[in-house]
Amino acid sequence: VVLTNVKTVTMIPGDGIGPEISAAVMKIFEAAKAPITWEERNVTAIKGPGGRWMIPPDAKESMDRSKIGLKGPLKTPIAAGHPSMNLLLRKTFDLYANVRPCVSIEGYKTPYTDVNLVTIRENTEGEYSGIEHMIVDGVVQSIKLITENASRRIAEYAFEYARNNKRTSVTAVHKANIMRMSDGLFLRKCREVAENYKDIKFTEMYLDTVCLNMVQDPTQFDVLVMPNLYGDILSDLCAGLIGGLGVTPSGNIGANGVAIFESVHGTAPDIAGMDLANPTALLLSAVMMLHHMGLHDHADKIQTACFDTIRDKKVLTKDLGGSAKCSEFTAEICRRVQDLD
Amino acid sequence: VVLTNVKTVTMIPGDGIGPEISAAVMKIFEAAKAPITWEERNVTAIKGPGGRWMIPPDAKESMDRSKIGLKGPLKTPIAAGHPSMNLLLRKTFDLYANVRPCVSIEGYKTPYTDVNLVTIRENTEGEYSGIEHMIVDGVVQSIKLITENASRRIAEYAFEYARNNKRTSVTAVHKANIMRMSDGLFLRKCREVAENYKDIKFTEMYLDTVCLNMVQDPTQFDVLVMPNLYGDILSDLCAGLIGGLGVTPSGNIGANGVAIFESVHGTAPDIAGMDLANPTALLLSAVMMLHHMGLHDHADKIQTACFDTIRDKKVLTKDLGGSAKCSEFTAEICRRVQDLD
Ligand SMILES: CC(C)[C@H](C(=O)O)[C@@H](O)C(=O)O
Ligand SMILES: CC(C)[C@H](C(=O)O)[C@@H](O)C(=O)O
Repeated sequence: VVLTNVKTVTMIPGDGIGPEISAAVMKIFEAAKAPITWEERNVTAIKGPGGRWMIPPDAKESMDRSKIGLKGPLKTPIAAGHPSMNLLLRKTFDLYANVRPCVSIEGYKTPYTDVNLVTIRENTEGEYSGIEHMIVDGVVQSIKLITENASRRIAEYAFEYARNNKRTSVTAVHKANIMRMSDGLFLRKCREVAENYKDIKFTEMYLDTVCLNMVQDPTQFDVLVMPNLYGDILSDLCAGLIGGLGVTPSGNIGANGVAIFESVHGTAPDIAGMDLANPTALLLSAVMMLHHMGLHDHADKIQTACFDTIRDKKVLTKDLGGSAKCSEFTAEICRRVQDLD
Repeated sequence: VVLTNVKTVTMIPGDGIGPEISAAVMKIFEAAKAPITWEERNVTAIKGPGGRWMIPPDAKESMDRSKIGLKGPLKTPIAAGHPSMNLLLRKTFDLYANVRPCVSIEGYKTPYTDVNLVTIRENTEGEYSGIEHMIVDGVVQSIKLITENASRRIAEYAFEYARNNKRTSVTAVHKANIMRMSDGLFLRKCREVAENYKDIKFTEMYLDTVCLNMVQDPTQFDVLVMPNLYGDILSDLCAGLIGGLGVTPSGNIGANGVAIFESVHGTAPDIAGMDLANPTALLLSAVMMLHHMGLHDHADKIQTACFDTIRDKKVLTKDLGGSAKCSEFTAEICRRVQDLD
């Protein structure tokens, strides 16, 4: 067999259960004969010249070459002043779009069925600017920064995403009744971009109204686009509707194909190393990655095997309601992947 | 009969369905023999000296005397630069605490049961400061202002509320991992105040985590306290869990007993004047008001009559799943109130 077109992916296993679930994903990729080689890299923030926090050069260099990363959970920094690695990665590679599809999983019961939506979050500015001041003692301001360029870019991403994924509507989520200039600018850019996508229905809604309607009937939503903090909130809310962060994938997309896909759950230190973790979120993130790389057949095969395993209910990890080990759950998915050949 | 201790309340009927639902509440209060006289006032923003927006003097003067207001929905301003009357009222009377109890209503089916929580929202600053600038073309900043005083004041309100309402825990909701200085200050004040309320359990949680956990199991929450915008979002989300804004009460509380209670749904212009509106949210807000005034017996009687009517399912407005007119629903509550005597 001559392996042509084998692509390199930078694998950042992460902390806690990260190594186990990364190993599970790599096993399933092997079973699916996905044409991927992995370059494993650890990331911990280090202090670069001038005291700026940066990710280790070998991780940066690998990502610069491969352009594609898959990332497990990273523990949140304990020391004050230490940056969040998640944020640092998004910043380092200018991953401006955070994409989280939320789709009901057959066989995994929640109060909601038929959820099928995608949150698209501006990932670089807004309330995450990091600019804060103490004005006088006891008075602090945080600055929410909204720019025309970042707003247009994320709006364009959302409409392109909708078109390429056969989705029919985009809703801009905002509080422009309160933040008239900043959310107003964001909203204006969405409206302008919408003009170029007459095939996609465009609506605008207040964030509070979206939250209320979301818990009453999430099936009314399709693609949602919003500033950074609103996306942080809504993406977690929506994950809750379909079963939580253990089963929801996430992608951080930049320009020129650069992207990091990640599970957004925690590191679960209490069960780390015990072969109890659920690799689904990382696996579904890896499926998003395969689609991103154009490897749709491999993506579909792995996703089918994963969802079939969950629907079948025979081999499930504890958080999914079963009693299987991570390795057993993984083996079951591998078996089904191979059966699909 | 000599009417002693009759208290005056400023009634702001509001727009759209406001007059109908206010009339319904006044009827039910009469049936309950609540010792209240109403002073009706309209509010539309007017331009005062120096071009500042203000509420009409006769409404201001009535509130200054009565200290207590009950308010129907007000239409959102269409003209740019026109202020939201809701915000102007909160500001004019320094109503610093927005209190929204969310309790499952027996007989009104939603995906959740046994919800019983209260959101307490800082109502004067944060993202609602109204301070925004364009820095250069295409770059806008909004300022989130957090002060020690407002943070301490709302934290104290939350713990006092918990204690006085036999609640056992207070959760501070924040994003201090991102807004380290502003949300950090808010959180620090909550922690300090918690020290003085050893009888109340204190926890802290990220806003995104709260949203996720809320839709998975709202029964784990009790009293939640948070900065302005987070409260706007969470209070609507929670309202959605129990049936929406048509059935959730709200109170805006200031210093020295000053308070305005309001329904937070819209003006529903499409059904205004047609005797189809549901007065429940305004009625339950009025029940909160009676408790605030120490008229607990009247409050309990009205609340029981309202919930019995809903549980009984025979006379319900359309939005509640029935076909009764507003006036019929109101008459049914009046009948039950009188039966309770
Ligand atoms: C880890 C944290 C900094 C991050 C955020 O707030 O964006 C997380 O909640 C997320 O949504 O990816
Ligand atoms: C009407 C609007 C300004 C208001 C807000 O954003 O606070 C509303 O959503 C609320 O929650 O009372």
